[in-house]
Amino acid sequence: MPDDLQLASLSAFRARVAAMPGPDEAAAEQARAHDAQLTKPAGALGRLESLATWAAAWQGRHPPRAERIQVVVFAGNHGVAARGVSAYPAAVTAQMVANFEAGGAAINQLCGVLGAALTVVPLDLDTPTEDMTERPALGEADCVAALEGGMAAVEAGMAAVDGGADLLCLGEMGIGNTTAAAAMAAALFGGDGASWVGPGTGVDSNGLARKAAAVDAALARHAEARRDPLAALSCVGGRELAAIAGAVVQARHRRVPVLLDGFACTAAAAVIAKLRDDGLDHTQVAHRSAEPGHRRLLEALSLDPLLDLGLRLGEASGAALAAALVRMAVTAHNGMATFESAGVSGPAD
Amino acid sequence: MPDDLQLASLSAFRARVAAMPGPDEAAAEQARAHDAQLTKPAGALGRLESLATWAAAWQGRHPPRAERIQVVVFAGNHGVAARGVSAYPAAVTAQMVANFEAGGAAINQLCGVLGAALTVVPLDLDTPTEDMTERPALGEADCVAALEGGMAAVEAGMAAVDGGADLLCLGEMGIGNTTAAAAMAAALFGGDGASWVGPGTGVDSNGLARKAAAVDAALARHAEARRDPLAALSCVGGRELAAIAGAVVQARHRRVPVLLDGFACTAAAAVIAKLRDDGLDHTQVAHRSAEPGHRRLLEALSLDPLLDLGLRLGEASGAALAAALVRMAVTAHNGMATFESAGVSGPAD
Repeated sequence: MPDDLQLASLSAFRARVAAMPGPDEAAAEQARAHDAQLTKPAGALGRLESLATWAAAWQGRHPPRAERIQVVVFAGNHGVAARGVSAYPAAVTAQMVANFEAGGAAINQLCGVLGAALTVVPLDLDTPTEDMTERPALGEADCVAALEGGMAAVEAGMAAVDGGADLLCLGEMGIGNTTAAAAMAAALFGGDGASWVGPGTGVDSNGLARKAAAVDAALARHAEARRDPLAALSCVGGRELAAIAGAVVQARHRRVPVLLDGFACTAAAAVIAKLRDDGLDHTQVAHRSAEPGHRRLLEALSLDPLLDLGLRLGEASGAALAAALVRMAVTAHNGMATFESAGVSGPAD
Repeated sequence: MPDDLQLASLSAFRARVAAMPGPDEAAAEQARAHDAQLTKPAGALGRLESLATWAAAWQGRHPPRAERIQVVVFAGNHGVAARGVSAYPAAVTAQMVANFEAGGAAINQLCGVLGAALTVVPLDLDTPTEDMTERPALGEADCVAALEGGMAAVEAGMAAVDGGADLLCLGEMGIGNTTAAAAMAAALFGGDGASWVGPGTGVDSNGLARKAAAVDAALARHAEARRDPLAALSCVGGRELAAIAGAVVQARHRRVPVLLDGFACTAAAAVIAKLRDDGLDHTQVAHRSAEPGHRRLLEALSLDPLLDLGLRLGEASGAALAAALVRMAVTAHNGMATFESAGVSGPAD
């Protein structure tokens, strides 16, 4: 691993977050000025216009691009899964990784439509995290390793996609991880387990009660998780969640705008927002998940998702859908005629 | 024009609406049964699942397809434009048609991303409709001709796209047509002009008042428009709006599911919903427009749009974005592995 992808400690990651660059204001201004000349009423493309400007600002170039799309799905297993918090057995995490690798999952089909490159990163699936209700899910060393894993996946993705990715879609797979995500959300934004848990892959009311109890027990045991976002990640997170946090930060350094998938992905990324107010400005939340905690989490983060289609699958499926919208936004921005070039009259006044 | 695309009268169109086929329940059931076997929790792809079933039901086949996408943009001019109801001069309708034909508009770029076939249908642009505040915008003969134009465009699109289109995106361009659409909505669903008009391409408050006054004057003059949907279309509609209504009906006969664009497109299609309760079941509304009347219109029709991105451009732009989602929904449905084929465990209980 290159030196600059090695973190000696969580403090080193904190410094890497602090060092993230801001937007390229010149590129953003070029995008706004170009948009104003296009053959449409000002503002008529709504959020597509702001997406094109966002892509320019965070890629640091005008025109922006959205051709080369990298999708990364991180997978992890969770000690808390043994507490009956999922409708599916923990073995499904590895089975689904095999399904990703064989091309049989939803995300494979969506990547096929996009012509996107898919990277699947299983993180020590044979060694679940500790049960967060009893011990820290990840110690500092494991958390650092997972953060590094996320950073390295972005680098590998940049190398795999010709000339580097224009856009990065992040997602996850991990039986039990909506419980970890609910615990993360509660640690970062307050509230008890019941206010953040939901049916996930489809637990019944007893399963839901077990999820809430697990979150409450974990937060009671790890008081530091409420005080420090990286302690939250270490104590009640998971490997795939830490990897997402690492990938979000590395993508900013490499000037790749990011599309975040659903509840678990947003809970992981929220760590970065808690460490730095503008920490997620280079990201868009792809969709509002059907998982009820996602709505509350998006409100806490003041983030407005691009889609709201009742998805609750994870594996970057919502991010891939949103990538199609970003591509269309950027393509319209780059390809449309101007009022002058097309000989179209402006407003009458 | 083939015999079956000729309408002797508005009554003949009414009969053509009554003769529209229903869904293919067998294909829909095959889609639901197939979905239940795919490697995801039941329901986890949310609205994507119902889109795949919808496509199967209305194409009358399983697996459904979403490869061959036809986009049709109808353009018309409006006598009411002379009453200062638009921010742009009426000449812009023809200028934008030229822009579509030259490839410079937003819809051209979006079609490029989709690999979709675009057909632009200008309808007598040199002869605007009558001013609806003084006379019927279209007489019966002109209305019939525009309905036929919409039906013929679907046929031409079927012929132009190899093997026929899998999906039809409808849109419009017409300076002044949000005023006509507001009048249509008021005629079909009640309420005065002020409750249905909005800024359109960007009129100021004086322009907005002129739009509301024009709608009120038109409805006062044409009492029959509130009693009969086809009278509404004839008296306060427009050629591109009638063409959309014709295209919606013809697409159902040809088993092509339809994506409706924004406010004007939905107002036109609402004629069919008023003529027959299930008249729009083969359509999806692509997006909720920023034009405020669209929200109210969708509520009146009990239709839930796929996207809500603040668009208000028309020209089928929202429909093209939604077509990408439908394609991804259908591709996931058709391409995913089953639990059995992938060796993935089902729920633990």
